[in-house]
Amino acid sequence: MNEINTKNIGLRGIKVADTKIGSVDGEKGILIYRGYRIEDLAANSTFEETAYLLLHDALPNEDQLREFKRALSEARELPSFVFDSIRKWPRPSRPMDVLQAAVPLLAMADHDLQLESREANLATAVRLIARIPMIVAGWDRIRNGHDPLPADERLSHAGNFLWQMTGTTPDPLFVKDLDIALVLHADHSFNASTFACREVVSTQAHMYAGVAAGVGALSGSLHGGANAEVMKMLDELRDEKDIAGWVRDQLDSGKKIMGMGHAVYKTTDPRARFLKDMCFGLGKQLGQEHWCGLSSRIEEAAIAEFEKRGKTTIKPNVDFYSAPVYYLMGIPGDLMTPLFAISRIAGWTAHIIEEKFGDAQGKPALYRPSSEYVGSYCGRTGCVYEPMDKRK
Amino acid sequence: MNEINTKNIGLRGIKVADTKIGSVDGEKGILIYRGYRIEDLAANSTFEETAYLLLHDALPNEDQLREFKRALSEARELPSFVFDSIRKWPRPSRPMDVLQAAVPLLAMADHDLQLESREANLATAVRLIARIPMIVAGWDRIRNGHDPLPADERLSHAGNFLWQMTGTTPDPLFVKDLDIALVLHADHSFNASTFACREVVSTQAHMYAGVAAGVGALSGSLHGGANAEVMKMLDELRDEKDIAGWVRDQLDSGKKIMGMGHAVYKTTDPRARFLKDMCFGLGKQLGQEHWCGLSSRIEEAAIAEFEKRGKTTIKPNVDFYSAPVYYLMGIPGDLMTPLFAISRIAGWTAHIIEEKFGDAQGKPALYRPSSEYVGSYCGRTGCVYEPMDKRK
Repeated sequence: MNEINTKNIGLRGIKVADTKIGSVDGEKGILIYRGYRIEDLAANSTFEETAYLLLHDALPNEDQLREFKRALSEARELPSFVFDSIRKWPRPSRPMDVLQAAVPLLAMADHDLQLESREANLATAVRLIARIPMIVAGWDRIRNGHDPLPADERLSHAGNFLWQMTGTTPDPLFVKDLDIALVLHADHSFNASTFACREVVSTQAHMYAGVAAGVGALSGSLHGGANAEVMKMLDELRDEKDIAGWVRDQLDSGKKIMGMGHAVYKTTDPRARFLKDMCFGLGKQLGQEHWCGLSSRIEEAAIAEFEKRGKTTIKPNVDFYSAPVYYLMGIPGDLMTPLFAISRIAGWTAHIIEEKFGDAQGKPALYRPSSEYVGSYCGRTGCVYEPMDKRK
Repeated sequence: MNEINTKNIGLRGIKVADTKIGSVDGEKGILIYRGYRIEDLAANSTFEETAYLLLHDALPNEDQLREFKRALSEARELPSFVFDSIRKWPRPSRPMDVLQAAVPLLAMADHDLQLESREANLATAVRLIARIPMIVAGWDRIRNGHDPLPADERLSHAGNFLWQMTGTTPDPLFVKDLDIALVLHADHSFNASTFACREVVSTQAHMYAGVAAGVGALSGSLHGGANAEVMKMLDELRDEKDIAGWVRDQLDSGKKIMGMGHAVYKTTDPRARFLKDMCFGLGKQLGQEHWCGLSSRIEEAAIAEFEKRGKTTIKPNVDFYSAPVYYLMGIPGDLMTPLFAISRIAGWTAHIIEEKFGDAQGKPALYRPSSEYVGSYCGRTGCVYEPMDKRK
């Protein structure tokens, strides 16, 4: 095979696979899951329905949705070793480290781990979708000195997460908005974490091994970690009068404005629009409009300053308004990235199944790229190994 | 950026980055670490020295090597929560799942986790190199009802692993051969697990998050999991008289011969040659030459059969002879892939540092490939969301 040189661009614009799961048109700001526009799904669907859509390539009918919810409900019980083990972990541990460690524990808890059929992987996906939020909520309880709570099956997936985290009946307003936020984050094509999931299972590793890699990738501040960074920024700027000056200073000193700009979108992220409206709606009802007001002022100042510098494609991304939304819901800053995982697990598992079974692309190939060696090399036979006493 | 289409070939032959760490010439069968031929390193170096070379881009002098060994030794103590937690895990758990879960625990145990300098990452690499074998050996003790053992600092890295696993002074013959095997497996350029490590930390995730992804990728049977599969094959064929017939039947039914063929090598893997000699040497000394004899007969039959079918580039890879070598050393089949990780952690951490600090390639970019959407799409505005009662 001829070598193709795509060095140092992070595979940007390099089509590495076919997919039937979704697409992102970064120029036009169009996000599609299985043929449906994200705006339609956010307005009309639920997280449970969207997760079904991503996994099954069709919206569920009533029976299918009931069965899907039943399977989720059934999976919302964990063998005791999981939390017995998690209780031993140091309380200051980062929730994303906790989640990455917990995913292989869920593999250990899976009695069907040796099954590798499509059906078995679909069942595993349901277990992961049900259990990831339980780990996040359970860890927040444990680190605050409480016990994890049993699921409340009368609640939706979003509502049950809030219940399992707080131990109080969640405000229906928060439940609906969180549900929409979960729909908005559920998939985003070949983003870094989804690609990590696919890359890992392309070796024929099991689904959990891939998901743990996805959690690792999501934790980075250039990916899912960005929402927590946005929240830190808002917190730092809460009393700042001169936002335009702050933006200018940031850019002058070569720093980023967290939550602005995206690897793919060259226009406003369609998810950001929804979250901005949600932020103002929530803020109004809670009498806390200043947070979204602050975000909005940063957005305007940043766009103006970027435009002055000739950068007209840097707009708010999904993290820019999800951070204040989650803050208003009472989600701690360091659970904002885990909350991203609670949603994205739907996309990760759909992509893992597509990768394993070649749904869109015939026989999938192990991802094994090439690289250009630019290090030492001493002629045809390599450098000569110097004995210890000859070394400097 | 123009889109480049590399679909469905698993990035084979696509140069995704510059690297100064190593190179694999698959046509000529040449493997280089930091400018040194693998044959030289296997004959003259040690795992500790090779790990230093991979991390520091130079062989250590006497003082540097002493200091590196001291740092490894110092890291061979774990906070008690790690094994307290691991003791809770079900004994039939797969060792690669155990290892993937344990890596984020090592992050929780790292008091310098917030430091992201090159020096801090080098120190983390040393801790990981020291501790991964402790987890593997400790798990084998725990699942067999024993306690993990403290390190014996008089022993080499390889020797200490055997001691911590078995609790008996290791045979010097095994120690030397295991040390060579660790040198041979320490790096292999942009293989699937190393690429997973780099991909994850390209989001600015910490080193542990990347390594846990690497462990996940290595677990797959198309990657590190292959040595365990080779061992299963040998075990199945121990009484088989007609090896040629078995090979023919395998290929006729579309199955692989485990340990034969490689994504990059189109000639004999240079590591396989070393391991084959080692296998016969060990077998002779232990009076157990039949295992390597069996491997060798499978090799000959497979090469002959592949050649008949016009496939002249399928040769033994590193896993083909590492499996019988590890078996002769008394390593359980399901610890053979973890043993690969015990070595490859040196390459993973070197690549993570190169990725994070752009040693070879200027400013590194987040890996975020593109894909081709081939799923449903209904015109300009996407499919129309059907209300539940309109669905089939």
